[in-house]
Amino acid sequence: MKAKDIINKFNIDHVVGDVDKPIKFCSPLDEAKDGCITFCKKGKESRIINGKYVIVVDKESKILFNKNITYFVVKNPFLTFVKIVKALFYEGTNQKNIHPSAILYDNVEIGKNVIIQAGSVIGSDGFGYFKNDDNIYENFPHMGKVIIEDNVEIGANTCVDRGSMGNTIIRQGAKIGNLIHIAHNVIIGENTMIVCRSGISGSVKIGKECFIGVGATIRDGVTIGDGAFIGMGSVVTKNVKPGTQVYGNPAREANK
Amino acid sequence: MKAKDIINKFNIDHVVGDVDKPIKFCSPLDEAKDGCITFCKKGKESRIINGKYVIVVDKESKILFNKNITYFVVKNPFLTFVKIVKALFYEGTNQKNIHPSAILYDNVEIGKNVIIQAGSVIGSDGFGYFKNDDNIYENFPHMGKVIIEDNVEIGANTCVDRGSMGNTIIRQGAKIGNLIHIAHNVIIGENTMIVCRSGISGSVKIGKECFIGVGATIRDGVTIGDGAFIGMGSVVTKNVKPGTQVYGNPAREANK
Amino acid sequence: MKAKDIINKFNIDHVVGDVDKPIKFCSPLDEAKDGCITFCKKGKESRIINGKYVIVVDKESKILFNKNITYFVVKNPFLTFVKIVKALFYEGTNQKNIHPSAILYDNVEIGKNVIIQAGSVIGSDGFGYFKNDDNIYENFPHMGKVIIEDNVEIGANTCVDRGSMGNTIIRQGAKIGNLIHIAHNVIIGENTMIVCRSGISGSVKIGKECFIGVGATIRDGVTIGDGAFIGMGSVVTKNVKPGTQVYGNPAREANK
Repeated sequence: MKAKDIINKFNIDHVVGDVDKPIKFCSPLDEAKDGCITFCKKGKESRIINGKYVIVVDKESKILFNKNITYFVVKNPFLTFVKIVKALFYEGTNQKNIHPSAILYDNVEIGKNVIIQAGSVIGSDGFGYFKNDDNIYENFPHMGKVIIEDNVEIGANTCVDRGSMGNTIIRQGAKIGNLIHIAHNVIIGENTMIVCRSGISGSVKIGKECFIGVGATIRDGVTIGDGAFIGMGSVVTKNVKPGTQVYGNPAREANK
Repeated sequence: MKAKDIINKFNIDHVVGDVDKPIKFCSPLDEAKDGCITFCKKGKESRIINGKYVIVVDKESKILFNKNITYFVVKNPFLTFVKIVKALFYEGTNQKNIHPSAILYDNVEIGKNVIIQAGSVIGSDGFGYFKNDDNIYENFPHMGKVIIEDNVEIGANTCVDRGSMGNTIIRQGAKIGNLIHIAHNVIIGENTMIVCRSGISGSVKIGKECFIGVGATIRDGVTIGDGAFIGMGSVVTKNVKPGTQVYGNPAREANK
Repeated sequence: MKAKDIINKFNIDHVVGDVDKPIKFCSPLDEAKDGCITFCKKGKESRIINGKYVIVVDKESKILFNKNITYFVVKNPFLTFVKIVKALFYEGTNQKNIHPSAILYDNVEIGKNVIIQAGSVIGSDGFGYFKNDDNIYENFPHMGKVIIEDNVEIGANTCVDRGSMGNTIIRQGAKIGNLIHIAHNVIIGENTMIVCRSGISGSVKIGKECFIGVGATIRDGVTIGDGAFIGMGSVVTKNVKPGTQVYGNPAREANK
């Protein structure tokens, strides 16, 4: 495979440098070596190192010309790079549908193209104890389902509890990382991302296109509006308005 | 099933509204619909919506009379509601004793009526490394047991490490959530609740009837007195007196 | 077994008290009873209780002489005590190599003397989504390995994601606790300790001989220098210099 083969196949319009350069593997920017193809995000130009390789860049990039490197100049370097990588170097993922070690109870409904990685537990009873007439703790009856819509992906060793009354729902396209706890009656909106080691307490409603950072904790009953951003390690004790960003323990709106 | 059938069966003394109303399912207050039975906790009266259903309330409730709704007025609406739900709508839990995917080592003793959900690991070696004469990390020998007393419940993907010398003990009636770490030589008191994603470090002693909020972290060697309340996401670095409440990172007593 | 048998076997030079005392078991200092052997770390002298047992101490210990107790005075009481315990009372660990319930994907390379406890998931895809041309979230292709070098130990229910491009690497002698998330392309240095419930985000580089406290969260891309100490529950958002200590959310250098 030479640079010019990629140029033809992926319709790269603007090229600077040697098009006969051999391309044998892909690499992150920091580890670029002879024979690789890599890419450069805006602002990372200072990390470009010398070598006989191809780099996919934006025309806005402030990069010094280096005669050893071949430059592919495109509109969106990251997306173009991913397409090249997937076509040439990627053998596909090991994560196919539901990993056999994941535990799914009967009360779970799964949509199309759902991935659930190893060790996750979906549909077990939630944590909702109360003291009964005999002053003994009893768990509230959990009768609800877990509903996982199309194109949801769930990482490894994550727990999603069934609803008590009503259901726990993860709407289409939401992506859930590893070691996350999603409690009873939570609703996660479309395309929301929940990064690893977060915890979403009972009856929390999260809107669509939100981002919940690593290790964040959301208090039970809280509502998080569409497009909100919850910073890493935040402890969210109050509702979060759509489109706002919160950080810290307890979490506060940015710049307030 | 009509409202009057429930009235007879559960000795509801005071009823306002149509006793011939059909009851087909149970529902949380926010989702009350025609044909359901629901309940109202004090302070949530403003969330009652119109419809042909039954609501279990307290006589202190400040609720507007609505001719469509049938009111069951009782002393403890929640407990009465749970009894009705369990008798009429609940098929029982899936969580029976020890889930087959849970890993229990030989050095674990289990009491009566213990529930351990899927994926939990009980009795593995704790984390207690030291540098030996050869300047190599070596784990302290773990020789102790995990002792889990009667009526303890442990959630999914939780880890309880065995004691090094001495044992790790979870006393009767304690309830432990999902994705929790309980380290070597910890003692958890009777009826203490530990909510999901918390971590209890080595040799921590927690009294009875305590509440450890979601995602809290307790430093090794700390003692937490009976009836203490640890707020969500707290990082507890010092002993906590009986009956006190602490919050934050690092955790401080409330109102101090 | 009598105290004098231990004295001979372990070359204890300096002994105070009865050498004919019978020794039947080992115990932590707080639970020392007749017939046990225990040890005392510097600063814990006030916790020594009366009884017919053996205690291993340092010659610097400020302890009151007690005629019931036999004192073994050595250079490093902890190390001497561990050697005695391992020789006399320890049957060895249950944690042998890779626990059968751990999930290891094909793309994992394991060194010698590696322990991986129950329920851990090694080598699954990381969490790195982007919106593609169709405005749909797609996961970055994960093509890298997880490389686990010699003498690494990994606890229970921990997740180590494979690299996207490049590898995730855990260098020799590193010790990783339970319920930890190690993301794609992370590098953990030699002999570094990562305590339970921590999370190391994508592409973080941690040096050698570091200590990452329980429940700490490290932001993606951060570099942590050799010998750094990250306090429990810290949220590390910036690079940490070698040999420094940081604490809090967000983490700050001690005494600054």
